[in-house]
Amino acid sequence: MLAAKGLIESRPKAGTRVRARADWNLLDPDLLAWMFEGEPPMAFVESLFQLRMIVEPAAAELAARLRSSRHVGRMGYALEVMEEAGLSSPEGQAADQQFHNLILEATANDLLISLSGSIGAAVRATTLFKHRKAKQLRDSIPLHRDLFAAITDGDPAAARAATVTLILQAQEDTESSLKA
Amino acid sequence: MLAAKGLIESRPKAGTRVRARADWNLLDPDLLAWMFEGEPPMAFVESLFQLRMIVEPAAAELAARLRSSRHVGRMGYALEVMEEAGLSSPEGQAADQQFHNLILEATANDLLISLSGSIGAAVRATTLFKHRKAKQLRDSIPLHRDLFAAITDGDPAAARAATVTLILQAQEDTESSLKA
Repeated sequence: MLAAKGLIESRPKAGTRVRARADWNLLDPDLLAWMFEGEPPMAFVESLFQLRMIVEPAAAELAARLRSSRHVGRMGYALEVMEEAGLSSPEGQAADQQFHNLILEATANDLLISLSGSIGAAVRATTLFKHRKAKQLRDSIPLHRDLFAAITDGDPAAARAATVTLILQAQEDTESSLKA
Repeated sequence: MLAAKGLIESRPKAGTRVRARADWNLLDPDLLAWMFEGEPPMAFVESLFQLRMIVEPAAAELAARLRSSRHVGRMGYALEVMEEAGLSSPEGQAADQQFHNLILEATANDLLISLSGSIGAAVRATTLFKHRKAKQLRDSIPLHRDLFAAITDGDPAAARAATVTLILQAQEDTESSLKA
């Protein structure tokens, strides 16, 4: 398993050694889950939000351009569940994840979908962490509603802006719970 | 190996089955290399260039802001090798790869570096393919020189623009060799 993940390598007569960290595929969902069992290091959290800020606004733009009414309908359903169950419940968190998966599905780009599977694993880990530590998280449902409206209206610029706001709020909440 | 890569799963009494393609980590460098042994499907190539167009201009911006003189020096060296050896030679291609790795290294973001390892594997495969098929590839050295100048000058907007131009040219060349 560790060899298939590229973490170690074995060579005849040379034995087994841990590969350089630069050769690890840090976006492997399993590896991310292992790394986040403890408290995630601040530098890693910053890298993650920087990557999210590059990928997710661009994906939201594409989704606003390419979404079908079926995507809109399923996103609307996920949003209702998020609101009813609340984001601190497992049901609400699963619906949140589903909401973001639907945005990626709407982009119709297999590589973006794969990448976001990895980013999603990291986000879920930081979210669990955030909910373990934070006293009072801000309600992100209104921001999700803005994003949903922009995608429904087919407005790429608004979808980008709403995503940027959503990521900034998540980043502030995560960093303040890491400092707590 | 296939299980660690998430391509198949085994359960007691249920046997082994191939997992849904949406659950594959398409950004795994080994998986990408396997997929590109034949002619890459056009839809995949389009997804790859769409992802590159999201990630690489943003990375070039960061690199222009954060690069050290050591990065600039090593990029300058790679550029000289590319020019001397030519991009159809293995040495020139390795230097090209090194040039782009240095941009990512300059971003100091481990996740971006990992992601680009995967994107790089796909790009190398399409490049090999391009060089196998194309009659006459355009010279991309002048565009690399523009990008290098922007990063040397610490000009994020110019670094973004040069990267966009470089990716567009690579996309046109790759798509025309796929249609050939």
